[in-house]
Amino acid sequence: MNPLEPMGRRAKAAARALLAAGPRKNAALLAAAALLEQETAAVLAANREDVSAARAAGTPPAMLDRLALDESRLRGMAAALRDVAAQEDPTGRVLEGGTRPNGLRIEKISVPLGVVGIIYEARPNVTADAAALCLKAGNAVILRGGREALHSNRALAALFRRALEQSGLPEDCVQFVDNPSRESAAWLMSLDGYLDALIPRGGAGLIRSVAEQAHVPVIVTGTGNCHLYVDHPADLAQAVEIVYNAKTSRPSVCNAAETVLVHRAVAAEFLPRMKSRLDEKHVVLHACPEARAILGAGALPATEDDWGREYLGYELAVRVVPDLDAALEHIAAYSSGHSEAILTKDYAHAERFLREVDSAAVYVNASTRFTDGGEFGLGAEIGISTQKLHARGPMGLRALTTSKYVIRGDGQIR
Amino acid sequence: MNPLEPMGRRAKAAARALLAAGPRKNAALLAAAALLEQETAAVLAANREDVSAARAAGTPPAMLDRLALDESRLRGMAAALRDVAAQEDPTGRVLEGGTRPNGLRIEKISVPLGVVGIIYEARPNVTADAAALCLKAGNAVILRGGREALHSNRALAALFRRALEQSGLPEDCVQFVDNPSRESAAWLMSLDGYLDALIPRGGAGLIRSVAEQAHVPVIVTGTGNCHLYVDHPADLAQAVEIVYNAKTSRPSVCNAAETVLVHRAVAAEFLPRMKSRLDEKHVVLHACPEARAILGAGALPATEDDWGREYLGYELAVRVVPDLDAALEHIAAYSSGHSEAILTKDYAHAERFLREVDSAAVYVNASTRFTDGGEFGLGAEIGISTQKLHARGPMGLRALTTSKYVIRGDGQIR
Repeated sequence: MNPLEPMGRRAKAAARALLAAGPRKNAALLAAAALLEQETAAVLAANREDVSAARAAGTPPAMLDRLALDESRLRGMAAALRDVAAQEDPTGRVLEGGTRPNGLRIEKISVPLGVVGIIYEARPNVTADAAALCLKAGNAVILRGGREALHSNRALAALFRRALEQSGLPEDCVQFVDNPSRESAAWLMSLDGYLDALIPRGGAGLIRSVAEQAHVPVIVTGTGNCHLYVDHPADLAQAVEIVYNAKTSRPSVCNAAETVLVHRAVAAEFLPRMKSRLDEKHVVLHACPEARAILGAGALPATEDDWGREYLGYELAVRVVPDLDAALEHIAAYSSGHSEAILTKDYAHAERFLREVDSAAVYVNASTRFTDGGEFGLGAEIGISTQKLHARGPMGLRALTTSKYVIRGDGQIR
Repeated sequence: MNPLEPMGRRAKAAARALLAAGPRKNAALLAAAALLEQETAAVLAANREDVSAARAAGTPPAMLDRLALDESRLRGMAAALRDVAAQEDPTGRVLEGGTRPNGLRIEKISVPLGVVGIIYEARPNVTADAAALCLKAGNAVILRGGREALHSNRALAALFRRALEQSGLPEDCVQFVDNPSRESAAWLMSLDGYLDALIPRGGAGLIRSVAEQAHVPVIVTGTGNCHLYVDHPADLAQAVEIVYNAKTSRPSVCNAAETVLVHRAVAAEFLPRMKSRLDEKHVVLHACPEARAILGAGALPATEDDWGREYLGYELAVRVVPDLDAALEHIAAYSSGHSEAILTKDYAHAERFLREVDSAAVYVNASTRFTDGGEFGLGAEIGISTQKLHARGPMGLRALTTSKYVIRGDGQIR
């Protein structure tokens, strides 16, 4: 037996109770926000245990920063919970509907997915975010966080369960797998019959392993090998600023640019301007031979490996291409299907790029950094889907719902 | 290397070409319909090979019937192709959109999935149906049919490829795996990186094995353990007709009823009337002790196994329940999430059933037999999804699309 089956059963029962929860969902979110502010000291104490253990284990500073909470971060977390409470309920919307010739009234309505599993890594704020979004969409959630944040996650999940209980909802709407082992992840991935969807949140390694191993339906999020293509003709001054923004404004995130493709006709003018702007942030360039002939020894030679890499840092691959076709071929071969942009003045090139690039978000003359639930006006997001089934691109509350057909008759037979 | 990789690569290239296909998609569908009528003799000759081999192998008559083609069935197939051509293009629809405060114009538009795989069994008409629906939605398709229909499928796929070529589209928009072995199914299920979705069409065994083994995203279709619940108070005469229709109008399909639950207060009156109507079709009843006390020896004792069974024939499980809660519990425990109906006069019971039953289609006072793309007004259907991600219930052309965000800017950075 899967050791998580009892949790799965409790989650299913909680999900059924949520179908009749009405305003208590929002009450629980507001109660959780209030508890977060009341219990700041306890949560921070739990977090300090995680941070000291991580520091003792030699965790790198960037990861320590993701792990650490402070009063301001907890206030931000509480504000985020109130924001989710204020959003429109994504369930119960009539998506399509009408009366058939035989008198049957058929409506397709949005309903909760049911039970959602989340596997995540070092950031404890995922516990609050994911619990809040799942609850708002009427789903029971099973959270399985990483070892590094165990004490923080445990404290936050307990606080959510108190908020549920205060609001008259089953505590088991939010369950926490208090066992951050490899085995517990595998159990969750094979909790067939209980999980309606499993969403991994974290690095590429985690996501790949979940996609490969899971038996339950998975929503794959996050890997972003994003491309910018500088066309001919383009506004080169604007293009320099978009490249600079897309690469350096926050290089560790999935919507940051990783490769710039440049049309041969503008390469000699564009590349040196781009390089001098990127030099401000000491961006390391990995360039094809043609680009290196222009950039000189300031650029490293690119290998085949560079075209497929998500650097997530101050590095950028650069390739000169003969035309738009070659740019489209390169993107089709190497893109992870997240976000790509063409920087151009040509109408037909822009439209062709929008049509033929097979990615979740395709841009003309803007930075790929906008691929984000908040920037798209979806509210808080549970992740950015790079798959095609169910949800694609930034996933807000609606991505945590499914639909059902509701049919009202008066004796129709077929 | 996966032996189907070359097919996968060709399919991806064909899918890219389809993005600019415009009206040639419909031209190819009409050309295929015309060829089907011109080449009737050749297709029927191929089908005769399959049918004689199947007959020699002792195939049961019901399966022979599913396998056999004749002129009228081919005419029906051609008409279906023309119907698909006449349907609205499911791609290029603006699903959502607007202008953000920073001036970015963001649209979410429907686009093809890309490459779709279909694994199916003995019915050769799936070759034409699936190829037509995938093509209309702009997808390249890889078809892997069953051994029994090999010659028929090969002939139909070849005819489709001629139609594509005549219409100026890549033949590889429709590819046929000319190898109906267990291995070829496994290859298709693990064609990661090439298949955007895999749809199994056939019996429960096939669907279960695909869902369990596939590494690529799967849309699970078809299994229907459908329930009717006769409430108190209900229009019993109407309820008898709905049960009779849902069980006997076509018992071999997934939307046929398999279990009737009856409220204790109406059981003594309802069950004998139901039985005498079902006796016209010699329906075998598997009843709980309380129902047997009413029905007598005319009903067999139900075992635990009966509640979970999809009989797909003239058999029906019958259980008396004390109230609506018990009916909801039974359905939550045993339903396959396909279609369920409540037969009632009570408004609150009807609404509660619609809300709390977690199935793709939930009915009040109508037969579950209506769960069907045509009956729902969706046009031809590729299957009926019993999963919650991506598509749920009858899947028409729109279920063969995904979406992408198209963002038009004029230099926005973040």
